[in-house]
Formats: sequence, structure tokens, C-alpha cells
Amino acid sequence: MSTTTPIRIRVWNEFVHESRGDAVVLGHYPDGIHAVIAAGLEESLGDAVSVSTATLQDPEHGLTEEVLANTDVLFWWGHIAHDQVSDEVVERVVRHVHAGMGIVVLHSGHYSRVFQRLMGTSCALKWRNDGERELVWTVLPDHPIAQGVPHPIVIDRQEMYGEQFDIPRPDEEVFLSTFAGGEVFRSGVAYHRGRGRVFYFSPGDQEYPVYHHPDIRRVLANAAEWARPTIERTPPTADQHPRDWFLNAQG
Amino acid sequence: MSTTTPIRIRVWNEFVHESRGDAVVLGHYPDGIHAVIAAGLEESLGDAVSVSTATLQDPEHGLTEEVLANTDVLFWWGHIAHDQVSDEVVERVVRHVHAGMGIVVLHSGHYSRVFQRLMGTSCALKWRNDGERELVWTVLPDHPIAQGVPHPIVIDRQEMYGEQFDIPRPDEEVFLSTFAGGEVFRSGVAYHRGRGRVFYFSPGDQEYPVYHHPDIRRVLANAAEWARPTIERTPPTADQHPRDWFLNAQG
Amino acid sequence: MSTTTPIRIRVWNEFVHESRGDAVVLGHYPDGIHAVIAAGLEESLGDAVSVSTATLQDPEHGLTEEVLANTDVLFWWGHIAHDQVSDEVVERVVRHVHAGMGIVVLHSGHYSRVFQRLMGTSCALKWRNDGERELVWTVLPDHPIAQGVPHPIVIDRQEMYGEQFDIPRPDEEVFLSTFAGGEVFRSGVAYHRGRGRVFYFSPGDQEYPVYHHPDIRRVLANAAEWARPTIERTPPTADQHPRDWFLNAQG
Amino acid sequence: MSTTTPIRIRVWNEFVHESRGDAVVLGHYPDGIHAVIAAGLEESLGDAVSVSTATLQDPEHGLTEEVLANTDVLFWWGHIAHDQVSDEVVERVVRHVHAGMGIVVLHSGHYSRVFQRLMGTSCALKWRNDGERELVWTVLPDHPIAQGVPHPIVIDRQEMYGEQFDIPRPDEEVFLSTFAGGEVFRSGVAYHRGRGRVFYFSPGDQEYPVYHHPDIRRVLANAAEWARPTIERTPPTADQHPRDWFLNAQG
Repeated sequence: MSTTTPIRIRVWNEFVHESRGDAVVLGHYPDGIHAVIAAGLEESLGDAVSVSTATLQDPEHGLTEEVLANTDVLFWWGHIAHDQVSDEVVERVVRHVHAGMGIVVLHSGHYSRVFQRLMGTSCALKWRNDGERELVWTVLPDHPIAQGVPHPIVIDRQEMYGEQFDIPRPDEEVFLSTFAGGEVFRSGVAYHRGRGRVFYFSPGDQEYPVYHHPDIRRVLANAAEWARPTIERTPPTADQHPRDWFLNAQG
Repeated sequence: MSTTTPIRIRVWNEFVHESRGDAVVLGHYPDGIHAVIAAGLEESLGDAVSVSTATLQDPEHGLTEEVLANTDVLFWWGHIAHDQVSDEVVERVVRHVHAGMGIVVLHSGHYSRVFQRLMGTSCALKWRNDGERELVWTVLPDHPIAQGVPHPIVIDRQEMYGEQFDIPRPDEEVFLSTFAGGEVFRSGVAYHRGRGRVFYFSPGDQEYPVYHHPDIRRVLANAAEWARPTIERTPPTADQHPRDWFLNAQG
Repeated sequence: MSTTTPIRIRVWNEFVHESRGDAVVLGHYPDGIHAVIAAGLEESLGDAVSVSTATLQDPEHGLTEEVLANTDVLFWWGHIAHDQVSDEVVERVVRHVHAGMGIVVLHSGHYSRVFQRLMGTSCALKWRNDGERELVWTVLPDHPIAQGVPHPIVIDRQEMYGEQFDIPRPDEEVFLSTFAGGEVFRSGVAYHRGRGRVFYFSPGDQEYPVYHHPDIRRVLANAAEWARPTIERTPPTADQHPRDWFLNAQG
Repeated sequence: MSTTTPIRIRVWNEFVHESRGDAVVLGHYPDGIHAVIAAGLEESLGDAVSVSTATLQDPEHGLTEEVLANTDVLFWWGHIAHDQVSDEVVERVVRHVHAGMGIVVLHSGHYSRVFQRLMGTSCALKWRNDGERELVWTVLPDHPIAQGVPHPIVIDRQEMYGEQFDIPRPDEEVFLSTFAGGEVFRSGVAYHRGRGRVFYFSPGDQEYPVYHHPDIRRVLANAAEWARPTIERTPPTADQHPRDWFLNAQG
């Protein structure tokens, strides 16, 4: 919980578009989206982070019990293979978030089962891919995740995600996006689940070089710092307490 | 508190643009903005409402103690004369909201002292008047104020209000607006203050015929129904209670 | 969605304590907890409700697709058989809540998988069963669920549930309870999930006659009225929209 | 905004009970409540803070424009002289909070005009002074203000403050208190107002030595660290923006 030790980050990517050899995707992300996200975090945070990556294809998707126990913040990018993530790994990730691990869910990860489980909703939304301009506006100027980015962030080309976004009412609504077509989206929303922190950030489609954008990289770095555990990681438990246990506990 | 008796609505307008003979404003609102808002509420709600109007120029601005005691929901439109509202009336309106009177604050009323007092913030925002298209998107589809309007409401010409809007985090964020210029605004937000309900709705500049728009009229009618008092109107008080008062109060 | 047609309520109880012949439980609830809850709702709401019951032992636990499609509000009581509810029924109930069905989760139902899925947290809490006094205080006096009950409700004997209660930050915190032993609990909390409403209410252990308590019956009746769907029931969906779809949709 | 420079704290106390020579109060606070609060902050935070004090009797109550411009976090203790604080100073403090200054409002300060102005509500509550036990329970275990204190904090003798507490729904509900008499109170609540942070903490009556309690001192130290400004202090303003101002602003 020291904030002086490096944040141990795991960047997870389903790595399917890239593995299939999609030329557009590989043009932006030749070694996978995870590699670019990881490089951005290292660029922004330097020695303050220790970044590793994992993909769907790894044994246990690279998210073993041991890995998660040693991860402070998990980044999650998935799109067309949500149903290939094993039930066991979904439950494991959720359990670690409850115990205190931070998670940053990106773009199409809104439909991952991990995010759905943490939200308790369908996480459905409206979408359209016209490669149009997205503006990401800061609503909470003093929120840690909004520091160091312009108001708004301008993304020249991006897929549109629009309301209604079927999520619980956010604990902290940090960013709102508008699109050239006129839609609006709650693009940066923060939640607390158990002892863990959850941040969802929608910019970042595989067809556009969004994760190379310096402002987006700044947001992801801020999110890593915000989501790191600040207290001892222990799963919430249901305990039976005798009468006046707390008085005795005082000594 | 019966919901079968008519809602007693008071529509308040500073009535300064119109009194000065501004031709554009009078073109849309020949008898004042308040008259059009009142007519819209009557059109939408019929016998379910009893609507009266008042302006800054009336004695005590038409908001005497007796008037407010007999008002269920107060609509507030002001723009260039916020500082001409007397301290006494500001305090009186706030006090009645705390006791249970509903209030619907419109457009430039964000800068009224009544709204600032209810919010506890500056209520500052960004603005630009280019007569551009505003889209009003519903974020909470099951909220009573959002019933019966399209997603989005399309307003062809309107002043732009943009983030950052310096308000407390809303209790209920009902609508988000986008503008042709790309900005975003939390255009329909609901709060609870004391026993009273507060709804702020930004569409409605004096230079555009927004209050003639059927969808905007529907929102205002919904807001009147939502904001009406549902429990006995009594001011919150600081009471001294003896030990076990609640047991004795049970009989 | 008419609020003049009867609310179709289904009261679900695992019915295990009673089936085992537990004398204390049967003393309070000879025909099962569900029967007493159902009777209370009928007593409070009369013709305004149509109440049926179901238990774990029924085919598909009495919660078939057809039943849920015709249920406005589901009440849920479970304790020692959460793991006997089939995965399929858990998913079905959650899906219907997302589409608009209301749900009222009672007491030990905090640990049901349905509630955990809707919350996204572990829902762990502290507990102690000393049959002690619980006081249920109203925090939001104008909330519909708090109408008609004293401040506080006094329950002479009840199991203690205490913080920390591992739930998301409530959308509406209606009641707070204290116990003779000094603990505190967020005992009445409301959430919105998809188009459905969720109310959790903790009073109601099988060993005490809590569901015979007139104030508790009033809360449950209020909760049924609050949780009923108010808009068309449709599941949230992810739709692709062409550019300017909303303009065309306007006609 | 560096978090490595000392937090500049101003502890304000109306200093009326003490000045009148109240023996009970002087027994606990011979040099005034502010002196003990200041000593506690210095004890907990050492070189990380620079603490000064001021009282109602000072010129401009010791809260001049210059003082506030150089204050990171203001602590506020008042009780029987709220109406002696000048309008000008009330407005000045509120304005500085909006611009980013943190404020920690203590105990009977709930009825100060500064707090009422920041909340937008009456801030009324129920009370009883029987010198009874208060237990302060942590609801949000990962909140910075809750670190390092037991669950619950046990205060042997304290005035009772009880619900209903007429405040807006908290942005963060950190602590809930119970009293030996059975009441409950939202005793530690956090808000964001403009760019400033507000924390209200109820323990701390003048008749009891609460500010000598090590756990209470820890909470106040945590609150000072939480409330310090994290971004540039500037008042929120209403700006007119030309079309596409943000694009031009990007260079």
C-alpha cells in the first residue's frame, strides 16, 4: 500500500483482431493493443510502474491466482471474444477487485463479463462506426483522473458510443464525450466495488490509433494511479460478532 | 399531499427583456416568457394544475409569504436582473423549498441567487449564442421527467450552455445535451433540498421559441408533477429530544 | 404501466427452515414466511395488488419465463439454500430486472446470487443473533418507501446486521438501523439497474415475527408500489445507429 | 499543489464558551478548542503542516482575504455565535472554497452560515446532551479519511446528534455514528463544492474532551490531507466561448 513502490500493472488484451491479421488493426498496433497501452503507461509513469501484459491465448488467459495476487491494477481490452474468457477467470478477476485490486476497463470491454459482473447491469449502449471526431470533456476538474489533459480532449477519428449506456449511476462521472454526429456518452466513469476501484474509459477502438494519443495516454496513467489499492487487500467477509466485540477489540 | 388535487403552480419571470421592448423576444413571447410557459403547462396538464404567474415588478415580486405557502411548484426564469430580486424574497423562496415546495429553475436562472443558494456552488458555466442545434438526450429512461419525449429532443436553434457547469454532483442526472459546436452540458439535473425537490433544465433562451416546443413543454409538465410536494410541508427544525423519546412517542 | 391496474407481485421464499420443521420458525410462520409476507401485502394494498407465491421446491423454483414476464415486483427471501437456486433462474431473474421488473430483496437475501449479481459486490456484512432491539430510522423523509412509518420503527427482537455492508454506494439511502449492541446498518437501500428498481430491506429474520409487524408491512407495501415498472418493459440492447438516425426518427 | 509542501491550515474557533469562563469547557480546553485541534494536527502531521489559529474576536475574524488566499484547509468550530460572523466573511469563505480551499466543519458548526451556504439546506438535526457513548463506524473502508482508526471509534461521553440531518445526499458517506440512546447520525460526510472539498465531522462537543481523543485526532489529520487543494486555485467563472474555441485552443 505504500505509494512509493511501483504500481504493478497487468495489461490484458484478448488479442484476436491482431492474431487474425487484420491489416487496419495491425497498422496501428503491430504487436497488439496491449503492447501500445503498456508502452504508454511506461512512458508516462516510468519507474513508478512495473507493467506486464497477458492475452486470452495464455494459459488461464495469463490471469492466474498468483498473477492477480501480485497485480495492483488490471487493464482490460476485449471485443469479439468475451465469451471465450473462462467462467473461472471471470470470477477470479471479480473476486480480486472485491479484495482491492483496481481495474480499468477500456472501450468495447463494456461488454466483457467481468465488467457486467462488477456493474450488475447489461452495459448495453448505442454505437456507430463512422470514424468521426470525439470530444472528451472533463466534468469534474479536480478529479485525479482528469489532471493534465485539455478540456476537451480532441480525438480526430473514433467509433461512436452513445447513450443510453446501461450502467449504474456512477460514483464519479469524470468525462462526457460528444461526437460529430451529435451523440453524447458518459465516457469516463468511476465506481467502488468492495475494496477495489473500477474505472471505465470508452475511447480506444482497434481501428483507430487512439492509444497513441498523448492525452489518452495521460488519462490511462492517471487511472492507474487512481485505481491502485490504498489499503490492505483482503476479501470482504461475513463475520459473526459477539456482543460488544468492538469494545473488547479496543483492548 | 393528495395527488388528485390540482398542482398549484406559480410561474415567475423577471420580465425585463420583454418590458424593454426587445423585438426578438417579443416576437416569441409577446405577453412574456411566463405566459407561454404557463400556457404550456395548462395545455399539457389541464385540470391537474392551477397555474398563476408573477414577475419581478409585482409587489414583493409576486412571491409573498402567503403566495408561497399556497404554491406547490415554483417555476423560475431570470436572466439580467438577478441582483434586483430582494434578499428577503431569495431567503423566503429557499425556506419554502426546504419546507417542501418544489422548484423548477430554467435556463439563465442557473445564475439566480435562489439557485445558487440551493446548490451551494457558483453555478458558473460556458456559453455561446450562435443559434445552433441542441440535442437533449435522456440518460435515465425510467425517470418520471423523461417520459413521453424522444431520445433526443431536437431543438433547432438555441444558445449553447457548456461544461464545466459548477454544480454539486446531481442526485439524478436526467438529461445531457450536445450542441452543433461540439460542447456537452448536463441540461436536466435533479436535487433534493430539505423536503423540497429542485429540477434545473437548461433549454429556453429568450431569443428562441423554445417554450413553444412540444417536447420541452412535456418536460416542464413532467417536472411539475415530479416536483410537487408528496409529504406534509414543514420546515426542518433542530429539536432537543429526551432519552428514549421515540419509545414514548410510540405510545 | 398504468398505475391503476393491480401490481402483480410474486413472493419467493426458499422455504427450507419451515420444511425442515424448525419449531421456532413455524411458530411465527406456520405456512411459510412467504405466506405472511403475501398476507401483509394484501392487507396493506387490497385490490391494488395481485399476490402469488413460489418456493425453491416448485418446478423452475416457480420462476419460469412466463411467470416473470407477468410479474411486476418480485420479493425474495432466502437464507441457507442460495446455492440451490439454479444458474438459469438466477440469470433469468437478473435479466427481467434489467428489462424493468422490480425486486425487493429481504434480510438474508443479501447473500443470494440474484442480489450479488445486481450489486456487483460480495454483499458481505457483520452479524450477531442476540434477539436484540433494532431501531429503523428514516434518513430520507420524502422517499416514497418511508411514508407512513414512525421515526424510528421499533423492532423488539431481531438479528443484528452490521457494517461494513459490502454494497455499492446506494442511489437512495432510505433507512439506517441501530441495534441495542451499538452497531449500525444501512437497512433500506435503493438502486436502479437497467430499467428495473431494486430495494434491499434488512429487517426480517426467520426466528422473529418481524413480518407480522405493522410498520414493516407498511414498508414492504410501499416498496412494492415504488418498485413497480413505470415504463415499457424491454431489455436494454446494443444497437447500431446510422448517422443522424435521431433526425430521421423524428420524421 | 505540490503534495510535498506543508499543508497550510487555519483552525477557526468562535472562542465564546472559553472567553466566558465556562469551567467545564476550560477544563478540557484551557487555551480554547482551537488550540487543542491545532496541537492535534501538529502532533499527527508534524512538518507536513503549518497550522495557525484565528477566532471570532480577531479583526475580520482572522479570515482576511490575504489569510484565506494562503490557507489550504480551514477548520471551523462554532456554536453560539453563528450570527456574529459577518456577512462579508461568510461570503469570503464560501468564495474561497469554490476556488479550491478545503474546509472541515466540526460538530455544532453544522449550523454555521458557512456550512449552510455550502450545503444549500437548513442543516437541522436532532440532539440531546446526556454525555453518552458514541460509536463512530466506518462505512467506506478505503476512504482516505477513514485510514488508521478502529471500527468503530469509541467515544465514552459525547452529545448526541441524530437523524434526520437535513443535508444534501453526501458525495461520500464515510462514517455513521450510533449513540447509547439508540439514535443514528451521518457523522462523517464529504462533498465537493466548486473546486473545493468539504468534510463535516460531528464528534466534538465543548463539554467533552473529544479533541484529545487519539482516533478523533487521526480523523482530523486525515481530513486535512484529503481536503487540501490538488489543482490550481481559481474561482469558477462564466465564460463566453467562440465556436470551436477548443480546437483553436489546441493550437
